[in-house]
Amino acid sequence: MTLMEFSMIPLDKGASFSKYVAKVLTLVDESGLEYRLNPMGTVIEGEWNDLLALLTMCFRTLQKESDRISLQAKFDYRKGVSGAIESKIRSVEASAERSLNK
Amino acid sequence: MTLMEFSMIPLDKGASFSKYVAKVLTLVDESGLEYRLNPMGTVIEGEWNDLLALLTMCFRTLQKESDRISLQAKFDYRKGVSGAIESKIRSVEASAERSLNK
Amino acid sequence: MTLMEFSMIPLDKGASFSKYVAKVLTLVDESGLEYRLNPMGTVIEGEWNDLLALLTMCFRTLQKESDRISLQAKFDYRKGVSGAIESKIRSVEASAERSLNK
Amino acid sequence: MTLMEFSMIPLDKGASFSKYVAKVLTLVDESGLEYRLNPMGTVIEGEWNDLLALLTMCFRTLQKESDRISLQAKFDYRKGVSGAIESKIRSVEASAERSLNK
Repeated sequence: MTLMEFSMIPLDKGASFSKYVAKVLTLVDESGLEYRLNPMGTVIEGEWNDLLALLTMCFRTLQKESDRISLQAKFDYRKGVSGAIESKIRSVEASAERSLNK
Repeated sequence: MTLMEFSMIPLDKGASFSKYVAKVLTLVDESGLEYRLNPMGTVIEGEWNDLLALLTMCFRTLQKESDRISLQAKFDYRKGVSGAIESKIRSVEASAERSLNK
Repeated sequence: MTLMEFSMIPLDKGASFSKYVAKVLTLVDESGLEYRLNPMGTVIEGEWNDLLALLTMCFRTLQKESDRISLQAKFDYRKGVSGAIESKIRSVEASAERSLNK
Repeated sequence: MTLMEFSMIPLDKGASFSKYVAKVLTLVDESGLEYRLNPMGTVIEGEWNDLLALLTMCFRTLQKESDRISLQAKFDYRKGVSGAIESKIRSVEASAERSLNK
């Protein structure tokens, strides 16, 4: 399985674009994939093809409204590992021997 | 105030480096700055100088143990805005008119 | 057209992975898409579907040899703009009124 | 030595911000540090403190003109290695046994 964190914003809509981010996040929420929103992006767990299909759907949706889009994506693939969206944080907390803010 | 998301890993310790991430996160946890850990990085809110001082402390600590370090950092500065670590997510949820997974 | 910058490395092969990067770059070089290698990544210009198809081919190739892969990708889409791989730099040089190191 | 790639843009100036990027690049060009501009960012080689001092100077300059700034930075530290801004590309070309577009 792969973890993907991404953020996608229009660059031609001024500095307040939460309306556009909301449309993208609605697609993520309806995808059925496991995800977590954070203040700087959204982390999703899935198979490569499913992640890229969702990314494409988000891009096509935003493309209808914006002529310039900035997108950052970061992937962490681990063979044979699933549930990493939860276990990565637990693993760091175990190593740190403390509870961390999530 | 500025939001900074970062992840810092050693590249010379194999594919299991949560022990090193834990040392870095301990520094973040003890910094007193507002932060949130997610499966792909850590988001911290603070003034520019405080964020860079913390990043430097994390780098110097990891540098003692590793000869090759990969670091990614992303910043979102907004003049006059504080509490964005919470309010960015609420703002997107309000626009999406739904609760999202955090 | 879209510009995509990406870097893809195995995390389970130690700190010297230029052999694996070379395999990925060979696929990019043979893709027929316009690209430029820099010390931190590779910038490619193309249509969204072509860029994601190439990214998938690179990922599948590396996946045969590595159990943990880290990938970062950054996209800049501009409607109706082509040749940005050259023109973006020229545009900044014109604004700066100086020649910059490329 | 460390390689840093960064890109810094104002989010409140519309989709054409090469004027602002030019100001930042002028600071980089005058810093005396080795750098290369690419279509998606700027790669600079230097010591950690020099890189962060330059990044801070760029941020402070842009902050005078913009109320919302997006910054991405990526670092690759290798103990005892200098000249990586040139040697990383040569190393990949040697492994790929071909000349690549730079």
